[in-house]
Amino acid sequence: MKLTRKEFLTLSSGAALSRAFPFASSSLAQDVTGSAVVQKIHKLIETQKEQHISRVQADLRQPSVSSWNMGIQEMADRMVASFRELGCKEADRVETDGFPGVFAFYDAGAPKTVVVYMMYDTQPFEKERWSRDPLAAERGPMGDFEDVIIARGAVNSKGPNRFFLNACQAILEVDGRLPVNVLFTCDGEEEQGSPHFHQVLDPYRERLRRAHCLLDAGPSQQRDGSVSMTLGTKGILEFELEASGERWGRGPQKMPIHSSRKAILDSPVWRLVDALRSMYDPSENRILIDGFYDDIRPPNEEESMLMETLIRKFPERLFTSEKENVHVFMKHWSPEEAARRLTFDTTMNIDGIWGGYTGPGSATILPEKAAAKIDCRLVPNQEIARQKELVLDHLARKGFSDLKLTLIGGGMEWSQTSVEEAIVQAVLAMYRGAGIDPMVWPRSAGSSPQYEYTRKLGLPACGGGLGHGGRAHADDEYIVIEGNDRVAGIVKAEQSVVDILFTYAAYPEAPRKS
Amino acid sequence: MKLTRKEFLTLSSGAALSRAFPFASSSLAQDVTGSAVVQKIHKLIETQKEQHISRVQADLRQPSVSSWNMGIQEMADRMVASFRELGCKEADRVETDGFPGVFAFYDAGAPKTVVVYMMYDTQPFEKERWSRDPLAAERGPMGDFEDVIIARGAVNSKGPNRFFLNACQAILEVDGRLPVNVLFTCDGEEEQGSPHFHQVLDPYRERLRRAHCLLDAGPSQQRDGSVSMTLGTKGILEFELEASGERWGRGPQKMPIHSSRKAILDSPVWRLVDALRSMYDPSENRILIDGFYDDIRPPNEEESMLMETLIRKFPERLFTSEKENVHVFMKHWSPEEAARRLTFDTTMNIDGIWGGYTGPGSATILPEKAAAKIDCRLVPNQEIARQKELVLDHLARKGFSDLKLTLIGGGMEWSQTSVEEAIVQAVLAMYRGAGIDPMVWPRSAGSSPQYEYTRKLGLPACGGGLGHGGRAHADDEYIVIEGNDRVAGIVKAEQSVVDILFTYAAYPEAPRKS
Repeated sequence: MKLTRKEFLTLSSGAALSRAFPFASSSLAQDVTGSAVVQKIHKLIETQKEQHISRVQADLRQPSVSSWNMGIQEMADRMVASFRELGCKEADRVETDGFPGVFAFYDAGAPKTVVVYMMYDTQPFEKERWSRDPLAAERGPMGDFEDVIIARGAVNSKGPNRFFLNACQAILEVDGRLPVNVLFTCDGEEEQGSPHFHQVLDPYRERLRRAHCLLDAGPSQQRDGSVSMTLGTKGILEFELEASGERWGRGPQKMPIHSSRKAILDSPVWRLVDALRSMYDPSENRILIDGFYDDIRPPNEEESMLMETLIRKFPERLFTSEKENVHVFMKHWSPEEAARRLTFDTTMNIDGIWGGYTGPGSATILPEKAAAKIDCRLVPNQEIARQKELVLDHLARKGFSDLKLTLIGGGMEWSQTSVEEAIVQAVLAMYRGAGIDPMVWPRSAGSSPQYEYTRKLGLPACGGGLGHGGRAHADDEYIVIEGNDRVAGIVKAEQSVVDILFTYAAYPEAPRKS
Repeated sequence: MKLTRKEFLTLSSGAALSRAFPFASSSLAQDVTGSAVVQKIHKLIETQKEQHISRVQADLRQPSVSSWNMGIQEMADRMVASFRELGCKEADRVETDGFPGVFAFYDAGAPKTVVVYMMYDTQPFEKERWSRDPLAAERGPMGDFEDVIIARGAVNSKGPNRFFLNACQAILEVDGRLPVNVLFTCDGEEEQGSPHFHQVLDPYRERLRRAHCLLDAGPSQQRDGSVSMTLGTKGILEFELEASGERWGRGPQKMPIHSSRKAILDSPVWRLVDALRSMYDPSENRILIDGFYDDIRPPNEEESMLMETLIRKFPERLFTSEKENVHVFMKHWSPEEAARRLTFDTTMNIDGIWGGYTGPGSATILPEKAAAKIDCRLVPNQEIARQKELVLDHLARKGFSDLKLTLIGGGMEWSQTSVEEAIVQAVLAMYRGAGIDPMVWPRSAGSSPQYEYTRKLGLPACGGGLGHGGRAHADDEYIVIEGNDRVAGIVKAEQSVVDILFTYAAYPEAPRKS
C-alpha cells in the first residue's frame, strides 16, 4: 500500500461539509483492519478479556491522587514495570521538582514513530459521596450498562491507559512487534495542571520532535454511542486568591476574632467577596478584567466550519451525556449556541471558596482570612502569563494588591491541530470502520498538556477510540466493561486502538507542516 | 443596716461624670464585706483553693460542644448534680426541642431572690490550632501568668460557672445558707443562639418574674487588670445563605461538573458571591439592605453619658485585650470612635463561607452549591424578625429569591439595663471595694439570652466579678488561676462573688421600675 497524501485524503466533492470531514477512504482503511493479522489480534483480545479487565482493576486499586500526595510514587513504578513488560528497552522514572513522570521507548524498527501521552494521577474524591469505594474498582451494573468498573481514574485516565497497553500486548503476542515505534510520555501531575511535565519531556525533547504525531488513545463514545473528537484544548490559568488580615494590615491579624468585632474591624472574607465580584459579573457572564478578551482570535475558517458542521449534523447529540445534571444553559442558550460557546469562549470559574467556620451549626467569628480557587479556560491566543498579569493589574488597580495570587499547577496552554493531519485522518477512519459518524469538535473545552507536543514540539495531536466512561472529576467515575448495541465495551475499545495503530502505520507519511 | 435607696446611692456632686457612676458608698459596702462572716468565707476560699481548681478542671474535661452534639447531655447532668450538692431542693433537667436546659432553686428564706444565668455549652474547636488539648484542662504558664487553665469553655463560660458554685459552697460551709435565694437557669445551646432557652424558662416564668434581678457573675478583668462592665447586649440575627443549582434551576443541578462547563453554565458560587456583595459594601462599611438601619434608636442620654465617660476616663484601656490580633480599626477610627461604634453600631459579618473543592492543590470543578454563614448584630430597636424580613425583601428585589435563607440559633434580641439599678450598684461597689475603677460600657457588642430576663421578664441584669480569662471562641482559650499584681486569680475571683451576693443582700430593696 503506497498512497500519496492526496490519494489518502479522499475528499468528497466540493462542499464545505466534505472539507470539514476529509475522511480517509473507508475501503483503504478496511484493507488494513480487515487483514488476517489484525483480525487475529482482535480475536486474541476477545479471548483474553477477563485477564485484560483484571489488569485494569489492578491499576485502579493503586491510588494515585496527586492533590493528596497519595500513591503517586507507587503508580509511577507500576507504569515503568508495565512498559518493561511490553518490551520497552528504555523505561524510566523521570524525576522532577514535583512528582516523577515516566518515559519509555518501544522500538519497532518501524518508519513511523508515535508519541503516546498518559496521565497516571487522578482527581481526589469524597468517599462518602460515592456509591462504592472509589479505590476498590468493583464491577457491577450502572444505568444502561450491565458491567462497568467504578473507581477514581476509571475513565480519567488510568482505565484507558491500560486499555492501550492491553491492546499493545495483544499485538505483540500475535505479530511480535508493534506497527509503529512508540515514545511513551507519562505525567503524574496532570490534575495539578502538569506543573513539572516539561521537566519530564526535557531530556527527550529532540527525540520527541523527530516523532510524527501524538496519539492520545482512549474510549471516547458518549453514553448514546456517539463519538466526540476534539482537535485541540483550551489553556488553563489556575490560581488561589487569598485575602488575609495580616497581609492587608486590617481586620483580625493572626486568628479569628469574636464576630461582634465586625462593628470596628474590616473582614478579609468580605474583602475576598468584594475582589471576586469585581472580577466577574455573573448576570452578564462578563469577565471585568481589562484586556482579558483582547488576545482572543476569532475561530478560523476550519474551526468555524467544523463547528457549524457539527451543529448541523448532530443537533440532538451535542450534550447528551450531561442531561441529568444540566437543565438549562447560561442565558437560555440553545444547544447549538452552547456548543459554540463551550468551544470558543474563555471562562472564569470558582472551583472552591472557603473561610471561617464551615461546620454544622453556629460559630460567630470574624475570620482572619479567606480564599478561593479560580480557573480560567483560555482560547487561542490567550496565554497564561499574560492573562495572569491582567488579573494582577486588575487587583492592583482596584486596590486589592494585598490579596495573594498563587498559581496552582504549571499552567497548560491551549493547543490546536488541523483536521487534515494524518493522525486525525487515521482516527477518523477507525471510527468510520466501526460504522460511526464521529462528532468533530474544533477543540475540547478542557485542558491537557497536549500543547507540550503541539506547540512546543510541533507535533500534530489526536485522541480517540471506542468505548465509554463518565463522571470524570465527580463521584462514581466509571468505565464500561460490557458494551451494548450502541457503546463498545473493553474488547471493542482495545480493538479500536489496534485499528488506529495499524491504519496510521499503513498511511503514507505526511509531509510535516512548516 | 437599714438604708434608703437614696442613702445607698451615694452620688458624687453634680457633674455628669458622677451621674454616670452613682456608686454605692464604698464605706457602706465595706461594712458588709468587712464583716466577720464574709472575711471567714474569704479565708475558707483561700484554704480550699486546690480543691476549687480541681472542680473547675473536672467541668472543663467534660466536653459540651453544642454545634457537634458532643457531651451536652452529660454536662446537663453534671449541672444538676452540682446544684443538688449545693443544697438545692429543686434541681432538674428541663427538656426542650433541642438540648436540655437546667433549672434549680436554692431557697435561703431570704427577702431577695437573684436569678443566675449559666451557659454550659461551648464553641467547637480545631484541635490542631491549640497549643494543648482543648479538653485536657491542663494548668501551666501563659504570657503574663504563671498559672492558667487552657481549655475550651475555660472563660466562656464553664470556668466562671464553677467559680460561682465554689463561692456558694464556701458561703454555705461558713454561714449555713446563702444571703439571697437563687434561681439557677442554665442554657445548653448558647453558642447556637439559644434557640430553645425560652422553653427552659417557660415552666418557671412567673417565679422568675417575681425575682429581683439577674446576676451573671464571672471574671471580667482584662489582662491589664482593668474591668469592663456591660449593661446590655446586642441582638443577633444569624442565618445561612445557600445558593444551589437545583433550587435555582440553573448551573449544575445535582453534583459538581467539570469546570470547563463554566463556559455554558451558571455558577451557584458566583451567584452567592453576587448576592453577598449586593448586601454589604465592605469599603463603605454600609449594609445595602433597604431599611436595615431604620429601626435604630440613637443612644439615649444615659448610654451616651456612660460612653463618653468611659472614653474620657480610660482612653488607653479601651481595647487592651485585642492588641496582638488587631492593628488598626476600620476606616482608621481612633480607639474612642471604635468604642462608640462597637457599642452602638449594627453589623453584617460573614462567619464562614464554603463551596466546591477546598482541599490542597487543584480540583477543577464547577460546584453545584455554595453557602455562607452570616451574623448581624442588632442594637435597640432592631428586632430579629423585622431585620430578617428586610434581608428576604432585599434578596427578592434583587432577583435572588432562589437563595435559601435558614435561621441559625433561636435569635437573641438586644437587652439594656440602667446603671441606676441596685444589682448594678452592688457590682460597682464590689469593684470599688477591690480598689478598681471599672469601665462601664453601655452595652456589650456581643449577644446573650439576657433579653429573656430583661425584656421578657422585666428584671434588671448585671454581670461582673474579679478574675481574667481570654481567647473565647478562639484557640487556647484560658482562665487565670494564679493572679498577679493587676489581675485576680481564682481565689479573689470567687471572693468577689461572695462580696456581690452579700452586698446586694444588704441593700435596701429597690422599688421595681414600672
